[in-house]
Amino acid sequence: MTALTFFNDAAIVVGMKRRVAGTPMVRKGERTRQRIVREAADIFNVHGFAGTSVADVSLATGLEKGSVYNHFESKDALALAAFDYAAAIVLDRVRAAMHAQPRGVAQVRALLDLYGGVGEAPLVRGGCPILNTAVEADDTHPALRERTRAAMDGWLELVTAALEDAISAGELRGETNAGAVAATLVGALEGGILLARLYGDAARLRAVTEQLSMFIDSLRTRSR
Amino acid sequence: MTALTFFNDAAIVVGMKRRVAGTPMVRKGERTRQRIVREAADIFNVHGFAGTSVADVSLATGLEKGSVYNHFESKDALALAAFDYAAAIVLDRVRAAMHAQPRGVAQVRALLDLYGGVGEAPLVRGGCPILNTAVEADDTHPALRERTRAAMDGWLELVTAALEDAISAGELRGETNAGAVAATLVGALEGGILLARLYGDAARLRAVTEQLSMFIDSLRTRSR
Repeated sequence: MTALTFFNDAAIVVGMKRRVAGTPMVRKGERTRQRIVREAADIFNVHGFAGTSVADVSLATGLEKGSVYNHFESKDALALAAFDYAAAIVLDRVRAAMHAQPRGVAQVRALLDLYGGVGEAPLVRGGCPILNTAVEADDTHPALRERTRAAMDGWLELVTAALEDAISAGELRGETNAGAVAATLVGALEGGILLARLYGDAARLRAVTEQLSMFIDSLRTRSR
Repeated sequence: MTALTFFNDAAIVVGMKRRVAGTPMVRKGERTRQRIVREAADIFNVHGFAGTSVADVSLATGLEKGSVYNHFESKDALALAAFDYAAAIVLDRVRAAMHAQPRGVAQVRALLDLYGGVGEAPLVRGGCPILNTAVEADDTHPALRERTRAAMDGWLELVTAALEDAISAGELRGETNAGAVAATLVGALEGGILLARLYGDAARLRAVTEQLSMFIDSLRTRSR
């Protein structure tokens, strides 16, 4: 046995022992972490960053505050993880709905169809986490604002890409400004969610998605 | 002198004394109250209801907390007065801009022109108070939500009335749904404000108002 083989074998054995002994611990810890994030995402989304304490998350999970702090060093760290989790749920649903359709206008319609039903069945509890967090974090929490920008970037890019595909394919007129239209659609969807939640009336959001659908129709090439 | 005259005279004298002695007191109290409301409107609009304390308002005004409580019995009462003040500034500006134009599409354009510049020069500090308060109050504060609904009602009614005038005058097509278009315009303006503030980029809101202007064009009667 050379020194090299020894070290290699030892490394393998140590690694295996670590894995064998560590796996259930890591898994349980990871499961607990995920449970904290899920509960925290609901609470932050309903009550906001300023309106939520680590004690609230502790109460909701049934874990001691110390246990929550074992996984997240601060309320800030917990809020960032909770936002990322909630925003990922929204973006995954948006992406899945859009990408289930052929590229172009059909994907834009899929987005509007999805949001036509969001008033009745919100994608996450407490309304759109991007809307909620953007409003609260714009003046007060730079790190949370950065995450919110990243999530909004992802959403705007999906819609802009679908509009650009529609322009390239000749479905929409060549002079259409894909970025500006995407901002208008996404902005109006957020505004429609705001109205639906403010009045407790899902029809308000559906009315907005129907008008946006007519707006997209108005951008179609005349030949269609 | 009859008893009646005596009482009348006495009442007048007492009343005059009260007025003479009371007027400066009342005026100073009212001025202080207005100053509290103005400062509180800024602070609540930037930091939110959950993120603002009476101590913050006391600090900003240089008044003792007890003095703030002399005018407002609770943080709730102060928040409601502060919201009403901020929302009235926004609605007064919207109404003034719209009503400076002839009835119909010109008033809708005036709304979009006003908001095209709001990214650079917000109507109140901290962004739109209706947007900010709607997002925070929807789940957590029924009284504040009621006020926010009332303000949103006022805004939607102004825009719906202008669209109805435009339909009656034959500027917009007869099948146009004024209420749904108003919700789409107002929702998209709020969404555009959200984007402009999130990215610190006023051009995002202007891009939205330009697209909304094209949307209104698409609703015009063909003869125009």
